Amino acid sequence: MATMTVQLGNRSYPIHIEAGLLEHTQLFAEYLQKRAVCIISDDIVAPLYLRKLARTLREFSPYHLTLPHGESHKDWQSLDSIFSALIKHGLGRDAVLLALGGGVVGDLTGFAAACYQRGIKYIQVPTTLLSQVDSSVGGKTAINHRHGKNMIGAFHQPLAVVADTNTLRSLPPRELSAGLAEIIKCGLIADVDLFLWLEAHVQEILEQNPEACEYAILRSCAIKSTIVEQDETEQGRRALLNLGHTFGHAIESALGYGEWLHGEAVAAGISMAAELAVRMDWLKASEYRRICRLLERAGLPNKPPTSITPMQILTYMRRDKKNRKGRMNLVLPRGIGKAEVTENFDPQLLGDTLAGNPL
Amino acid sequence: MATMTVQLGNRSYPIHIEAGLLEHTQLFAEYLQKRAVCIISDDIVAPLYLRKLARTLREFSPYHLTLPHGESHKDWQSLDSIFSALIKHGLGRDAVLLALGGGVVGDLTGFAAACYQRGIKYIQVPTTLLSQVDSSVGGKTAINHRHGKNMIGAFHQPLAVVADTNTLRSLPPRELSAGLAEIIKCGLIADVDLFLWLEAHVQEILEQNPEACEYAILRSCAIKSTIVEQDETEQGRRALLNLGHTFGHAIESALGYGEWLHGEAVAAGISMAAELAVRMDWLKASEYRRICRLLERAGLPNKPPTSITPMQILTYMRRDKKNRKGRMNLVLPRGIGKAEVTENFDPQLLGDTLAGNPL
Repeated sequence: MATMTVQLGNRSYPIHIEAGLLEHTQLFAEYLQKRAVCIISDDIVAPLYLRKLARTLREFSPYHLTLPHGESHKDWQSLDSIFSALIKHGLGRDAVLLALGGGVVGDLTGFAAACYQRGIKYIQVPTTLLSQVDSSVGGKTAINHRHGKNMIGAFHQPLAVVADTNTLRSLPPRELSAGLAEIIKCGLIADVDLFLWLEAHVQEILEQNPEACEYAILRSCAIKSTIVEQDETEQGRRALLNLGHTFGHAIESALGYGEWLHGEAVAAGISMAAELAVRMDWLKASEYRRICRLLERAGLPNKPPTSITPMQILTYMRRDKKNRKGRMNLVLPRGIGKAEVTENFDPQLLGDTLAGNPL
Repeated sequence: MATMTVQLGNRSYPIHIEAGLLEHTQLFAEYLQKRAVCIISDDIVAPLYLRKLARTLREFSPYHLTLPHGESHKDWQSLDSIFSALIKHGLGRDAVLLALGGGVVGDLTGFAAACYQRGIKYIQVPTTLLSQVDSSVGGKTAINHRHGKNMIGAFHQPLAVVADTNTLRSLPPRELSAGLAEIIKCGLIADVDLFLWLEAHVQEILEQNPEACEYAILRSCAIKSTIVEQDETEQGRRALLNLGHTFGHAIESALGYGEWLHGEAVAAGISMAAELAVRMDWLKASEYRRICRLLERAGLPNKPPTSITPMQILTYMRRDKKNRKGRMNLVLPRGIGKAEVTENFDPQLLGDTLAGNPL
C-alpha cells in the first residue's frame, strides 16, 4: 500500500493508494473508532461498490444515502438530502461521513461534513481517476450556485483518503480521460518530468495498467499536496492548481453543468491558457503544440465547445473566485513545468484566444 | 468607547461598545481598508438604520441587501439570496459583509461569509440586546433545518463587532427581555456577582438606562469570550453557554420558528434546567425560585408554552448537537454561578420536569 501524508499541522491526513482497499476493514476501523458512519454515494457508483464497502464496514452498521449522479446535482438540494438523512438517523457531532464516488460525491460529502452541526469528520473514498488525483487532496469542498461553479463551500480536510485503484476498472473511457486532464495539469504547472513521462505512457493509463495508474496518482497527489501545504486556503500559490480552471469553469457554467465532464472542460481550459501564454511570449508555440497533442492523445478536447460564444465564456470568467478588486486573475504556463498567476495580460490577447483567432 | 478583545490567536477580534458607533466612519474604515462592502439587514432594521450606516460608509459605496425579518427566515432561501446578491455585484474573496441587525441577520451573514467562495470576512453590527450580548461573540453561525435549529453552520469569527447601544432605543420591550435571558444565563453559569447585580438592576435595563445596558453587555461578552477562548469549537466547556438551550431549541422547533423569540424559549429552558437541577439536588429550591422570579421580572416566561406536549419537546431534545453516541447531554446549574454538562441524569426526573409535575 502506497501511503503519503498531506502535512497540514493538526489537520494533516494520509492518502492510501492500492488495489483492493475497499475490502480493508482494519484500515477503515483505525479511523472510525466505533463512531457512527454514513456512506454517501451516487446512483452510478452505489450499485457497483456500496454493498462491498458496507460489508467491509459491517461491524459499524453503517447508514447510507444514494444521491443522483452528476455535476448538475452538486447543489443545495443534494446537500439538504444529506442533512435530512443525518438528522433522521440521529447522527451527532461524533459521526463520520464516507464519500464513496467521484469528485461530485466528494465535494458534496465534504461540504456537508463541514456544515453539519458546524463540522464533523469525513473520509474520502474516491472511485474515479479524477477524484483520486485531484479532489481528494486539499480539502476544497463546495456546491455550485446557478450563477457560478463551486461558489459555495469550505476548506475542510478529511480524516483520510482511501483510493482503491480497482475501482478504475469500472470507469468509462471518457471518465478516465477526464482524470488525465488533472494529471497533465500537474505536470504542466510543476513537474516537467511528469509531463515527459505522460508523453511516453499516456496510452498505458488509458489501458489501465495498474503500475502506471498508481504512479500517476501518487505523483499528482504529491505535487498537489506540496502546493497545498504552502497555502492551504489559497491566498496565493495554491491558485496555480487552477491552471485551465478559469476557462474550464466558465465553459461548464455556460454549457450547463453535466454537458461536458469537469476534466474535459479543464482540458479545453488548459489549451486556452497555453494559447494565451503563447500570445504573451510566455510559452513557445512548439510547447503549446505538445500540450494540445498530449490532451488529444488522452482523449480530451483542446478547444472550447462550438455551441457557446466567446462572450459567454468571458462573462463567467469575470466571476472567477481568483479575481481581486474586479480584476481577472489567470494562471498561465511559463514553459512546461512552471506556471504563474497574473492579472497583467492584454485583454485583446485574451479576446483573440476566446475568439479562436489564428496564432 | 468600551473595547474588549476575544483572544483566539490569528482569529482574535475586538468588540466595540458605545452609543453612536453607527456613525463612526473611522472605526469601520480601519477594518474595511478599501475593500468592497455589502451590508446585510432585514426589513425591520433596514428602515431604521440602513441609511445611517450607508452614509457612514459612503466612501466605500456599499452594496446592501434586505432580507425578510425573523427566525422563520433563517434558512437556505435567505442564504441563497445573499449569495445571489454577492455574485450579481461581482464581489470576490476580498469583499467584506456587514451584518446589521439581530441574531438572525448575524447568523445568516456570518454563515454566508463562511461559505461564499469558501470564506470571506465579515463584521457584526448587532442592533438588539440579544445579539449584542450573545450571538456576536464566538463565531457561531448557522441556519435552521426544518428538522432542527442551527443544524447547518460553521465556526467563523468576525473581523470585529461594533455594538451601538443607541439602537436598543428602537427595540420593542419583548426583544429587550429576550436579550436579558442570555444575560441572566451568563450570570447563572459563571458569575454570581452578575446574577446579584441583575436582581438589583433588572428594571434599569428594561428602562434602557445606558450605563446599566453597557455594563450588562460588556460583562456578558467578557464571560462568554473567556469560555470561548478555552474551547472555540465546543469540544467541551463551551457547551456551558448552552444552558437552557437544549430545552429552548426544542421549544422553538416544536412551536415553529418565530412563535416565541429565541430568548423567550431560552428563558423557559433555563427555568426547566434549573427545575431538573433541583430534582437532582444540584440546586436549592430557594435558588430555583430566585431564578424564576428574576426571569419573570425581566418580562420572560419561566414555563414552556402550553400548546406543545412534553413528548414533542423530548423528540427535539434528542436531536440536540451536544448529544454523543445517542446519549442526551444537558447543561444544568450547580448552584448560582456554576454549571456542568452531564449525561448522567435520571430520565424519570427529566420526564417529571417536562410534564410539569410538582417539585
